[in-house]
Amino acid sequence: MAAMKVHGNPLSTSTQRVLACLYEKDVEFQFVNVDMAAGEHKSQNFLSLNPFGQVPAFEGDLMLFESRAITQYIAHEYSDKGTQLLLSGSNKTMARLQLWKEVEAPQFDPPSTKLVYELRYKPFFGMTTDTAVAKEHGAKLAKVLDVYEARLAQSKYLACDHFTLADLHHLPNVQYLMGSSAKKLFESRPHVTAWVADIMARPSWIKVPDMLKESLKTWDTI
Amino acid sequence: MAAMKVHGNPLSTSTQRVLACLYEKDVEFQFVNVDMAAGEHKSQNFLSLNPFGQVPAFEGDLMLFESRAITQYIAHEYSDKGTQLLLSGSNKTMARLQLWKEVEAPQFDPPSTKLVYELRYKPFFGMTTDTAVAKEHGAKLAKVLDVYEARLAQSKYLACDHFTLADLHHLPNVQYLMGSSAKKLFESRPHVTAWVADIMARPSWIKVPDMLKESLKTWDTI
Ligand SMILES: N[C@@H](CCC(=O)N[C@@H](CS)C(=O)NCC(=O)O)C(=O)O
Ligand SMILES: N[C@@H](CCC(=O)N[C@@H](CS)C(=O)NCC(=O)O)C(=O)O
Repeated sequence: MAAMKVHGNPLSTSTQRVLACLYEKDVEFQFVNVDMAAGEHKSQNFLSLNPFGQVPAFEGDLMLFESRAITQYIAHEYSDKGTQLLLSGSNKTMARLQLWKEVEAPQFDPPSTKLVYELRYKPFFGMTTDTAVAKEHGAKLAKVLDVYEARLAQSKYLACDHFTLADLHHLPNVQYLMGSSAKKLFESRPHVTAWVADIMARPSWIKVPDMLKESLKTWDTI
Repeated sequence: MAAMKVHGNPLSTSTQRVLACLYEKDVEFQFVNVDMAAGEHKSQNFLSLNPFGQVPAFEGDLMLFESRAITQYIAHEYSDKGTQLLLSGSNKTMARLQLWKEVEAPQFDPPSTKLVYELRYKPFFGMTTDTAVAKEHGAKLAKVLDVYEARLAQSKYLACDHFTLADLHHLPNVQYLMGSSAKKLFESRPHVTAWVADIMARPSWIKVPDMLKESLKTWDTI
């Protein structure tokens, strides 16, 4: 097994998603910082790692990109290490994990990513939040969180009674939004609130800003 | 095994994605038409099948929604029937399928869905295409198709040398866009053109409009 490398940027939610997974699995890897301010993610060198010119990119026994393809690979490859992030058993059982992973990506991610951009990145980079855009995506996110509230009233985590990739994939956007005015969308829903508190307190997740602070000292200020 | 039901709408790309998969696997199912014009997808009854109030919804030995979670379940459940839509073997092999499925959903689907809406649905429903929006998403789709062109120069299909779910998931949006001015985005890229011709000619896919024509007689006119 070649030494694993994650090429990414500490501020990037997609990078953080992969780091959280690696910490849950307790496997060694090297973090290679991609200087996005300098446009390094559009360099020929980086494009050979990810043709979309986006972070993260992964190098190990194989080359991968797309954060959720990387987490899936790591969760399978190290199924006997660290936290069990998958659901094993019948196809019916696995379909439950697949379902909630498939909910995160098209339903939760688009409005929450827009909100992270409007409410966290823009102020950090000295730009002005577009309140109409924030409101529109806040309303979309609220509808998604209504579905989560109902689900989490029945099940401690999204896919089943233990933490899986379906929960983990939410962490970066949840972390950013809990430090913004969008916090109220989560806090007005009791089961969502309990779930957010639980997943944000995971030792693996706490390591992510720790590592990023070391490398960039920006997590607190953004 | 309970009789499978797909609740959906013939014009819906997400519904068509599931139908294409069922035809590839050559399994019996019942199609239940959801009258979206009458708002049936927001009825209490339908919300108990899919809390997001979107088609499709799936009923079988388990209840599912999200088209890509449904296709994944069907492809596994009927792995010994019809076309082999998965990649089996090592985790490394499976990661290639996962990668190209993960590319379709966040990279190809958003701009192509916007274009389908602007260039096909809007004219069909008597609304005016917003050419600025169409141009913006056309440019985004062109960049995605550049990556596909490079990939398809090396590999007959996206994940490997046979047709998989990664290809199948593209079919509904590709079909709509090939009947629009966005056709040129595909036709200007030779490997993409060959791939599109190949996947659109699959016997399973040809059955989808046939079935829909029977039920609604709209496919040709939209
Ligand atoms: N779907 C991709 C999204 C990756 C992504 O959007 N990365 C952002 C940072 S979080 C990026 O590199 N943006 C720069 C760009 O798109 O040019 C994934 O999950 O890995
Ligand atoms: N990510 C979902 C998308 C489903 C979806 O957007 N369905 C559309 C028709 S293609 C729909 O029901 N739209 C009505 C609505 O969102 O209210 C999937 O893949 O199943």
